[in-house]
Amino acid sequence: MPKVVDHQARRRRIADALMRVASARGLEAVSLRHVAAEAGVSTGMVQHYFRTKDEMMTFAIEMIGHDVQARLAQDAAALGENPAPRAVIRALMVQILPLDDVRRREAQVGLAFMAYTAVRPDVGAGLRTNIAQMRGFLAGLIGGGTSRPDIRADPEGAAALLLALVDGLGLHVVNYNYSPEDALKALDSHLDSLFGTTGEISAVGTGH
Amino acid sequence: MPKVVDHQARRRRIADALMRVASARGLEAVSLRHVAAEAGVSTGMVQHYFRTKDEMMTFAIEMIGHDVQARLAQDAAALGENPAPRAVIRALMVQILPLDDVRRREAQVGLAFMAYTAVRPDVGAGLRTNIAQMRGFLAGLIGGGTSRPDIRADPEGAAALLLALVDGLGLHVVNYNYSPEDALKALDSHLDSLFGTTGEISAVGTGH
Repeated sequence: MPKVVDHQARRRRIADALMRVASARGLEAVSLRHVAAEAGVSTGMVQHYFRTKDEMMTFAIEMIGHDVQARLAQDAAALGENPAPRAVIRALMVQILPLDDVRRREAQVGLAFMAYTAVRPDVGAGLRTNIAQMRGFLAGLIGGGTSRPDIRADPEGAAALLLALVDGLGLHVVNYNYSPEDALKALDSHLDSLFGTTGEISAVGTGH
Repeated sequence: MPKVVDHQARRRRIADALMRVASARGLEAVSLRHVAAEAGVSTGMVQHYFRTKDEMMTFAIEMIGHDVQARLAQDAAALGENPAPRAVIRALMVQILPLDDVRRREAQVGLAFMAYTAVRPDVGAGLRTNIAQMRGFLAGLIGGGTSRPDIRADPEGAAALLLALVDGLGLHVVNYNYSPEDALKALDSHLDSLFGTTGEISAVGTGH
């Protein structure tokens, strides 16, 4: 019987090795050779799946996106039927923030990828599409969930702001500038404001 | 007469070369050798001023910080005496956002540096101190300028949020995920909310 090769599993194994190399030694240590050594396979095997470093890194970023979505799907089940838009958004943002070792490694690799694509815009095309989709998804939830007329008038803008905030918080958490608690507090404070449940309103409403 | 060497100018020339290499080819292309070639000096000369890549990168980041402050000082003069806290904050944030070629290159190098220090926290110690100072500075302005009681109760938290937002917007602008106009719109919308001048309040106040 011919041996059945699980190509997706092999790609995943190589991409996992890339994640370990990048998070331990940085993006500049990521090479076909280093990643092959870390994965315990030959350089030829890595090249069979990924012709270039760009291809390998793009696959790793897509893998992170799938992992985030898989974790979100688990959390979404716990939120029950018809969860509030704010709860869905918070669950997603919490899966992106580097609040544990797994997400910290993802954020390190994500940050390295963004630094890499900042000077090679063509490599970032796939991520750009995903980010536009994410913005649209968030905009739908925000528009449907907020009590603020100014936000309902421009949910796309509010979604872009939220995504930038969470990515900026992640940037500072992986650099130990902010603690994970700082980041969560900032996220919740922003969600309060975004959904019109901030102290601001009651304070204004009651004349304080 | 002995030749007088302007060491600071030489360091600056080398750091400028580093900026060009990093923004054209990425951080992984930054080496003593490449930077020396770009600066038109010998590798020995670069090593005289910077023993390691870490030292060279740290100097470049400090140089960016000084350049941002110098531009801010110019803008501050135009704001007149006793400028409103919001105007000072906006002027500073605008100097950080990658809205032209100079600031885009700074943001590319800043992003590369943050990706580098995310896996080498000791190299990021100086930047961490600067960020803590910046948070304190912003917190003072926010606390003195906002009409929102909830923000006055925690200006440090609001400052951390604002800084993360601007860095996240920068991340997406250098990656061409957001346009510079998107970023400015998000900044102004956030400042409206932060200083309590958003449509939210009047809408709530008038019962809309």
